[in-house]
Amino acid sequence: MSIQAVKGTRDFYPELMRRRNWIMAAWRRVSLRNGFEEYDAPIFEYPDLFTTKSGPEIASQLFNLVDRGGRSLAIRPEITPSLARMVNAKISSLPRPIKWFSMPRLCRAENTQRGRLREFFQWNVDVIGSDEVIADAEGIYTAVDFLREVGLTPADVTVRIGSRALTVSALKAAGLSDESVQAALPVLDKRAKVSDEEFRRLAVQAGMSGPQIESVCRFQDCDDLGALAKAAGGSSDGEAAVEQLRQLLATLRAMGAGEYCTLDMRIVRGLAYYTGVVYEVFDAAGSMRAVAGGGRYDNLLEVLGGPKVGATGFGMGDVVLGLLLEEKAKFPADVDASSVDYYLIDAEETCFPRVVELVGGLRGRGASADFSYARRAVGKQLKEANRRGARFAVIVREDGVSVKELATGEQRDVTAEEFLASAEGSQGNR
Amino acid sequence: MSIQAVKGTRDFYPELMRRRNWIMAAWRRVSLRNGFEEYDAPIFEYPDLFTTKSGPEIASQLFNLVDRGGRSLAIRPEITPSLARMVNAKISSLPRPIKWFSMPRLCRAENTQRGRLREFFQWNVDVIGSDEVIADAEGIYTAVDFLREVGLTPADVTVRIGSRALTVSALKAAGLSDESVQAALPVLDKRAKVSDEEFRRLAVQAGMSGPQIESVCRFQDCDDLGALAKAAGGSSDGEAAVEQLRQLLATLRAMGAGEYCTLDMRIVRGLAYYTGVVYEVFDAAGSMRAVAGGGRYDNLLEVLGGPKVGATGFGMGDVVLGLLLEEKAKFPADVDASSVDYYLIDAEETCFPRVVELVGGLRGRGASADFSYARRAVGKQLKEANRRGARFAVIVREDGVSVKELATGEQRDVTAEEFLASAEGSQGNR
Repeated sequence: MSIQAVKGTRDFYPELMRRRNWIMAAWRRVSLRNGFEEYDAPIFEYPDLFTTKSGPEIASQLFNLVDRGGRSLAIRPEITPSLARMVNAKISSLPRPIKWFSMPRLCRAENTQRGRLREFFQWNVDVIGSDEVIADAEGIYTAVDFLREVGLTPADVTVRIGSRALTVSALKAAGLSDESVQAALPVLDKRAKVSDEEFRRLAVQAGMSGPQIESVCRFQDCDDLGALAKAAGGSSDGEAAVEQLRQLLATLRAMGAGEYCTLDMRIVRGLAYYTGVVYEVFDAAGSMRAVAGGGRYDNLLEVLGGPKVGATGFGMGDVVLGLLLEEKAKFPADVDASSVDYYLIDAEETCFPRVVELVGGLRGRGASADFSYARRAVGKQLKEANRRGARFAVIVREDGVSVKELATGEQRDVTAEEFLASAEGSQGNR
Repeated sequence: MSIQAVKGTRDFYPELMRRRNWIMAAWRRVSLRNGFEEYDAPIFEYPDLFTTKSGPEIASQLFNLVDRGGRSLAIRPEITPSLARMVNAKISSLPRPIKWFSMPRLCRAENTQRGRLREFFQWNVDVIGSDEVIADAEGIYTAVDFLREVGLTPADVTVRIGSRALTVSALKAAGLSDESVQAALPVLDKRAKVSDEEFRRLAVQAGMSGPQIESVCRFQDCDDLGALAKAAGGSSDGEAAVEQLRQLLATLRAMGAGEYCTLDMRIVRGLAYYTGVVYEVFDAAGSMRAVAGGGRYDNLLEVLGGPKVGATGFGMGDVVLGLLLEEKAKFPADVDASSVDYYLIDAEETCFPRVVELVGGLRGRGASADFSYARRAVGKQLKEANRRGARFAVIVREDGVSVKELATGEQRDVTAEEFLASAEGSQGNR
């Protein structure tokens, strides 16, 4: 019998795993230097946690399962609801702002397409317990700090910033009821992703009239901060939202992230729980799905049984990011570098016990060491040392060892004891 | 509404997450220095992959789910079948031996008990493509290398080594049919875990007679390598299995792992696919479940549609290990150390824009920096810097900055530009 992997999942052979580890190490490094602490949640939860406030799109993408007691469970399609649950459970003892990050494995029962798989990893960075614009700025700055860290420049990627609050103002100013506003938001989110006809069809279906559609499109197409409040109808809510955007952009410029950021009112975000600033990161060519997306969600904790607490953050998936890093050749050459410091070779079979002993001695000192299980000619073992990318080949004879640096061919003959005493490892925790 | 976590899962708040990361970093570091490369597989597979050869216990513990097309899937309860599937798919292009490791998240629908959860992480280390005893020795050595790395001594933990092949010889010598042997193995595995009466009840149920039970118990209680072949009935298969154990122990001694290892024929392992040497790691007090377990499984790849290829390896879960590390106080004091290098403080509110600018400048240089979102008195901000465990508090004034090392109280006054130029980060990728 031969069993295949499930469609939309990935087998992480070592070559792909090294790239995943390289991305995740950068996610973690950037998170820590931006003052975030790492957390994680279970991979399955009770489904209500996901269906309560994330909206119908997420609910339709759940992988449902049943535990032994007959209760329904679901694999997490996102981690934000679990984050809200965890924070709610300790809300009185956690000092605020809570700055946390995670790199969860997520699963969504979606149709597999380029950049969209049914299982992926997503970097999540959130600030909970602050209503200040500076918290939104920290989220965006952290995303930019990562993009810069992996070599993506403003010529490669753009952070497009919108405002759910301002979009709601514009919809209300166009005369939509509260209920119609909720129906219209996911349609506006799709505008940049579907054809004009399809967009109009969906908008009409959501209850918008022709003039309402025109009015909202004019608002979405406005990219002048000075004209935005008026384009959104000139309400005081709208003016407050514009003032927040102004502060946000000024803060991002002061932090040194301004050149990556631009206003774009077409950014609405698909999830239902966003309330304020929203943003997505796109490749500059616009040929891919969003690399990252996030925003402010001030009601989610309350809806899930906690207090009303300001919250903002983003998620960045590994799939589109990986495609972009490949396309722009940003994975470093040494991502495939070997971790083998010493490859030990027996000059003749009788020296093999000494090889095994030295391998143990090297590893015990923290150096990485490997050797051939099968007894073979020295030439074949040397070939294997080269194939494994070892730094040194160590030929073990009865009377000592020859340590050969493979890059230079330089060789020195020493006693086994001298060799062991001088050996040191290069490989850290990758 | 308030939603709870599912029983048997863990919420990894930062404190627990740091411990998980510390364990996983050591797993990875030790794997790499022992010459293993990292891989991973999807978290769900078609259920046949798990039910084909792992045995009925695993099958009863599967979390089953259904995809949108109505096909059954299962969350992985172990990663070895996925490993076999992946290796089979590329068997002709992978140089052997294949030395791979992984640290998968696994889920089992079990009753939750001390040391046993429904979701956990398991370090898996495998050598595929070698029939040599040295491959089994490498697995055990790598487990010991980790135990030593985290400070567990032979006084804390013991690797108990048995032989599935020798146990089968003993069962056959006692007169059991091939079929009865398969039924008896999981019962023998339980012998050290249940009462004598319960063991006898299960053994009788598996078709063993009183004299057969006596004979096999005598074999299991023999810990003298010289007497083992005879205790197992003296067949040539049995003698070959004893010779393998002899070589294995000699190799482990040569590598410097001998003091952790002991023979124990009561070790049988529960999974159905083991064929040769088997082993489990226990705390010396014997008060906990196994910390790790593994052995040789030479038929699994063939059963799953590949060639007949020798394979051996082990898994070490994070739950019992975590309990043991806590009990023995092996988590280092600095596992809770902060990653904040610089905590920036505004001497007065007008300096806040400068704080934000400096934070961006520091992070851009790879240093970790944080600050208060709310404008507060300098004393309160200093208190927060201490709470966060920052190395330095940096008070930003109009005309320069005061850099205060919090451990020593030492302070120097410099210009903002001098400070930024001299700043460096300490935190790596943890």
